[in-house]
Formats: sequence, C-alpha cells, structure tokens
Amino acid sequence: MFKKITIIGLGLIGSSIARAIKKKNLCKNLIAHDKSESVLKTVLKLKIANQIEKNVKKSVENSDLVIICTPLGTYKNIVSNIKNNLKKTCILTDVGSAKIYVTQVVSKLINRNTIWIPAHPIAGTEQSGPRAGFADLFKNRWCIITPTNKKNSSYIKKLNKFWKRIGCKVQYMSAEHHDKVMAITSHIPHLIAYNIVGTAANLEKDTKSEVIKYSASGFRDFTRIASSDPIMWRDIALNNRKQILHMLDKFNSDLKNLKGAILKRDKNKLFKLFSKTRKIRQAIVKAGQDISTPNFGRKN
Amino acid sequence: MFKKITIIGLGLIGSSIARAIKKKNLCKNLIAHDKSESVLKTVLKLKIANQIEKNVKKSVENSDLVIICTPLGTYKNIVSNIKNNLKKTCILTDVGSAKIYVTQVVSKLINRNTIWIPAHPIAGTEQSGPRAGFADLFKNRWCIITPTNKKNSSYIKKLNKFWKRIGCKVQYMSAEHHDKVMAITSHIPHLIAYNIVGTAANLEKDTKSEVIKYSASGFRDFTRIASSDPIMWRDIALNNRKQILHMLDKFNSDLKNLKGAILKRDKNKLFKLFSKTRKIRQAIVKAGQDISTPNFGRKN
Repeated sequence: MFKKITIIGLGLIGSSIARAIKKKNLCKNLIAHDKSESVLKTVLKLKIANQIEKNVKKSVENSDLVIICTPLGTYKNIVSNIKNNLKKTCILTDVGSAKIYVTQVVSKLINRNTIWIPAHPIAGTEQSGPRAGFADLFKNRWCIITPTNKKNSSYIKKLNKFWKRIGCKVQYMSAEHHDKVMAITSHIPHLIAYNIVGTAANLEKDTKSEVIKYSASGFRDFTRIASSDPIMWRDIALNNRKQILHMLDKFNSDLKNLKGAILKRDKNKLFKLFSKTRKIRQAIVKAGQDISTPNFGRKN
Repeated sequence: MFKKITIIGLGLIGSSIARAIKKKNLCKNLIAHDKSESVLKTVLKLKIANQIEKNVKKSVENSDLVIICTPLGTYKNIVSNIKNNLKKTCILTDVGSAKIYVTQVVSKLINRNTIWIPAHPIAGTEQSGPRAGFADLFKNRWCIITPTNKKNSSYIKKLNKFWKRIGCKVQYMSAEHHDKVMAITSHIPHLIAYNIVGTAANLEKDTKSEVIKYSASGFRDFTRIASSDPIMWRDIALNNRKQILHMLDKFNSDLKNLKGAILKRDKNKLFKLFSKTRKIRQAIVKAGQDISTPNFGRKN
C-alpha cells in the first residue's frame, strides 16, 4: 500500500501497528523511531521494523505515511521537529485519544500543504512497551478518523483502507464528537478505575493486603485498567479536560443520587438503578465488543 | 462429611455449592429448596441435588448442614420459617455479603442453642441462576467465616473443612472487619460500576449506541459487574450501609482531589495518582487472585 511508513513511538500501539503492517505486508520499508534507545534495540530484536532511526527528522524523510504513536504531551516537540522533513505527498497521522487537542496543536505547527489526518484506533491492553504489542490488537475494533481538510479526501480514503487492512472498522467523525464519546467510554472509566484503586492504595497497610487477598469480589476488574500507562493517561486527563470534567459532573450527580437512595433506604430506586445496566452489557456482547463468557473467560 | 445437606436458594452460588458437593461427594443426601418452582425444575433437570423440596420447613428437617444462599432481604422470612425445624446438631450457615446485618437478623430469630455460623465465600460471576453455577467457582478463592459463638468451635472446624473440600482457603474474622474489607473490595466497586454504566444509560440515544460501539476502550470492563443480580446488590447496598457510605466518602474525597488536579493542570500530581495503582494489580496477580494475561485473556 505504501513504499515507506514511519512509526514514531513503539509502545503497545505503535509496535502493534508495526506487527500488523508486517503481517499484512502493507509496505516495503518500515522505519521505527523512538526517543528511547532501549525501545529501538527491542524493536530490532523483535524484527518488527525494517530499520530503526534515532533521529526523528531523518526517520520521516521520504516516508509516505508517518504515524505518531506517542503520549499527547510529546506532539508539539515531534511535529516541530519533523514538519519540514515530510515529503509533499506524505500522510501525517496519529493514534491519540484526545482529538481536539491534537488537531489544534498539529494544525498550528504544520506547513499549509501538509496532509494531516488525525485518527484513533479504539484498542489497547493494560500493558505497555514494544514487547506488549501484537498484530491482532486491532481486529474487529473501531478506528475513528477525524479529518480536518476536505481537500485531502483521496488521502483520507487511503488511510481508511490502511486501517481496514490492519483489521479495523473505520468511522469518520468530528474531533468534538470523538472527544465527547471517548470521555464516557474511555476517559472517565480509566479515571474512575485509577481513583478507586487509589482509594484502596491509601488504606492502612493491613487493610491493603486484605484488598489484594479478597480482590476477586469485584475490585480486581478495576485494577486492570488502572495499571495502564501513567504518562499516556496523565496527558489524556490534561488534554480532554473540558469533556472529561463535563462527564465527571454527570457521573458525580448520578453517584449523589445513588448515595441518596442508600441513605433513604429507597429499595425501589436501588433496584431500578441496578436493573437498567444489564441491557448495556448485553448490547456490547451482541455488538461483538466483548465476550459473553462469565468473568471475561477467567476460570473463577 | 455430612449425611444430609440443605441448600436454600439455587442461584449462581447455591447451585455452584451443590455441584461442588456432588463432585467432592460431601454428603449422601443433598436437598434443594428454592421459592421459585422453575428454579427447582431446573435443579432436577441438571441433577445437581438428590431431592427438591418446595416447603422450606420440610427441606431442613434432619439436615446436618443448612446453607442459606438467597439475597439478604429474604433471611428474616426464611429463618423464621425454619428455626423450629432444625435438628439440635445442625449447622446453620449462609453465604451473604454483609455479615453484621445477617448476624443480627439471624441471631435475634434463632433458638438459643442453634449452631449458627455465618460465612461468605468470595466468589462469583456476573451471571445468575442455577444454570450459571459451576463446581470450580470456589477454587483458590477465600471463604470468610465470622463465628458468633465460641461454644461452637467443633462445628466451626467442620464448616472450615467443608469449605476447604469445596476448594476455598478459609479465613476467620469479625463481622465488622468483614464488612469493612468487603465495602472496598466488592461493594464500592459494584456501586461505582453500576453508577458509571448508569451514567452512560442516561445519555441521549445516539450517544448510547456509540458507547456500545466503542466500549472496548475501557467502558466494557465496568459493564461486567454492572450486570450482576440487581436484587442481590440492592440488598447489599441497604444492609452494609454504614461501611459503604464511609468508603464512598473516601472515594469521593479522592475523586475531588483528582478533579482538582485536572482543573489545575497539575501534571506531577496526575502522574503520581496514575502511577501508584500498578503495584496493586501486580500484587493481585502475584497472589493468584487474577490472571496476568492482558485484557483478562480476551483476545483484543
């Protein structure tokens, strides 16, 4: 599909894209750049790129597709560095989780004719780093593309095709809408999980060891996403601030309502609150976005 | 181990105990009582008890062990009904999730010499009903026994042995301590999960369908425990009220702190908050209370 692709940032997502590109044979020459030398060494060992390049400017030279797969806080620096080294027909894209922020940051920095098409594949695990990636991470997952410039339509189609070859279903939407939807489906769940595991971490030492011992009663589910990459999540919290705070207010208002029902011993209200949520899970399973086996397939 | 065992309530837990008793051959005669005739029919079909008995009083006659496996709100009625039909040497126990409440309710109702030993196996899935049970549900899980009367020590030992044969590790503690630990490891996680899925359920129809579509970004994890049995959870919320409200206040205060960090764009604080939680997951995996494979072993 492309002669040369550059991936900047070979963590879980970047290294999974690299593996998928190799598996589907989507380019001749795959270049990997990462600011960490040890990551680049691992990439070499794993043979998931044709070439590693320590210099970010050089890494994008003559590339047909450059994919930024680093935490949001690094975009400014990366784009400032590479903007004059992109060839005219190169697609610049990313995988970041806060689309208004990246669109603004990148649009301000790039040259007028740069083909910049933000994207976000909705996939991941709680693990980080190049060893954590795998080629099938994106299979049956959605990739959201938030185009900024209609003039790029042929390139947008090409990027769409690329993500489909990687295994995704593709959806276009505005950056604003993306950020709103992600606030509730991803950002708030992560913040809440971090918060509840944090509450447990703050307990006295004795209680904490019991939290670990008896975690199979519900708590352990939260610890999975609360062990995701802290830099990535710090940057998301900072850069989808408005929508996160808005959705957090909704969550808090609902929680106040739930607390009120417990305080008032309102049996009917509690039953209603705990009944309406089953349907959502059933719909998620039906949509192929989770497995139906109990306990996520864990044996007990 | 016992000649005759009676299980009252053949839902996920009760039917799993029945299956485990059969598998390990822990009694000659296993009696199943459930207020639902359709549940009893299913029990017959599944052949997980020797006998079904519609009359709760009759179901406990001459039993050596009676295990209440019904929602907390049903205890009063059940114990009032059976209290005069228990034989002198019968152990009366349960599997309920709020030990102060059940201890108080049952202790008030039973005759002075009744051998009442509250217990709580820390195990479950999001599914309900007799078909959802399986014999290995308790394997490598903890069972907490909260004894009320030292005079029963030989019976307590027998119940301990019973749960070990079922597959559990056994821990003694006070009802007060149990309720405190369960508030953070189980009750708050469930309430928070119900709440966040409820927040999503309250969104406009369009957004809701997108929540389902893009749920793999974190949200789907919460929907699992938010599809647990609503009656069971209504009764837990009502009957471990004090500890739940106390722990909810801690959670809320931590969440306020997290919100403040986002508002103030406090990078360092956010990084710290999101870093300290990884250790807890590692400890849980090390303790054998969860699997280490990413995404709970789901393929993507």
